[in-house]
Amino acid sequence: MKGDTKKRILKSGAEIIHLKGFHHTGIQEILDRAGVPKGSFYNYFKSKEDFGIQVIDFYVEQFSLLIKKFLEDDALTPFEKIQGILGWFIEFFKSRDYAYGCPIGNLSQEMGDLSPEFRIKLKQAIDSMVKIYAALLSEAQKAGELSGDLDVQDIAGFIVSSWQGALLRMKIEKSSGPLENHRKFIFSYLLRT
Amino acid sequence: MKGDTKKRILKSGAEIIHLKGFHHTGIQEILDRAGVPKGSFYNYFKSKEDFGIQVIDFYVEQFSLLIKKFLEDDALTPFEKIQGILGWFIEFFKSRDYAYGCPIGNLSQEMGDLSPEFRIKLKQAIDSMVKIYAALLSEAQKAGELSGDLDVQDIAGFIVSSWQGALLRMKIEKSSGPLENHRKFIFSYLLRT
Repeated sequence: MKGDTKKRILKSGAEIIHLKGFHHTGIQEILDRAGVPKGSFYNYFKSKEDFGIQVIDFYVEQFSLLIKKFLEDDALTPFEKIQGILGWFIEFFKSRDYAYGCPIGNLSQEMGDLSPEFRIKLKQAIDSMVKIYAALLSEAQKAGELSGDLDVQDIAGFIVSSWQGALLRMKIEKSSGPLENHRKFIFSYLLRT
Repeated sequence: MKGDTKKRILKSGAEIIHLKGFHHTGIQEILDRAGVPKGSFYNYFKSKEDFGIQVIDFYVEQFSLLIKKFLEDDALTPFEKIQGILGWFIEFFKSRDYAYGCPIGNLSQEMGDLSPEFRIKLKQAIDSMVKIYAALLSEAQKAGELSGDLDVQDIAGFIVSSWQGALLRMKIEKSSGPLENHRKFIFSYLLRT
């Protein structure tokens, strides 16, 4: 039961922080949404910062669950897996009126300079995304979809960071244009063999 | 004199918001740094939001001043102008320990979903950057540096958004790696003729 309550607080916090950012989200607001009695927050978390760090783990876990169906689909080539993931997120953001963006990216922007603990945790989270793309690109090289002399780590880093920039622009454009532009350039220029 | 005080408040606010974000910056903190008496803020600004909107104009003005020397240097080719601008910013962020990032990008991330007034103003600010790159890329096409059949508006949009993503990653990496990776990919893949 204790685990359930903690999970409920993390989930509610993750949702509110995703839209409003970390500083702008109040603990009371999180507890209200989670339906958890006032005052119980500190039974589960040492501080708001400790909570924020654990929310990052929650986001990484959600991301892994979301992309699992593409990564494990043996009918797809590595490039098709990447297309599948990008396409899924484009549809997701369409359905959310182009709000939210990537919670890890948002927190990197907001907290990167303000808290070393957040910064290190966020770096690990972004690195884990880079690692997933790098593994797919290595697979693509083995499958002959991508030229073998390219540095997959560098390309994966660029895909992840330019995706983050596209999400940022999506939020103020309120359109899928920047995301579609990202996908187009990645596949037309970067990944052409 | 009134104009001077207002400018001083904007400059101080711009500096603090650049590091800490909009919500996390207090009006009193801005007035303290500007050395302006308590309570005078509302002589110049209708609200904190009105102030934030004017800070965006201030950032755009600063950006224009910074890049002017590259844009107006007739000894440089269009590609060299872009290299000059990117190189200048890489050195700037090195000298600031890879903190801050782009104030327009930061605010887009923080405020894009929360205030329509901010969103529209930020979109105009980002569009003005895209316009500058698109003009340079058109010049590059005329000068034969860039293939004439590419859509300069789309490429300029991608350069700006992927730069924003690189800055975001720089903040958590605390290294110039993501910025240098951005420059490398833009010139090795996107702008190769």
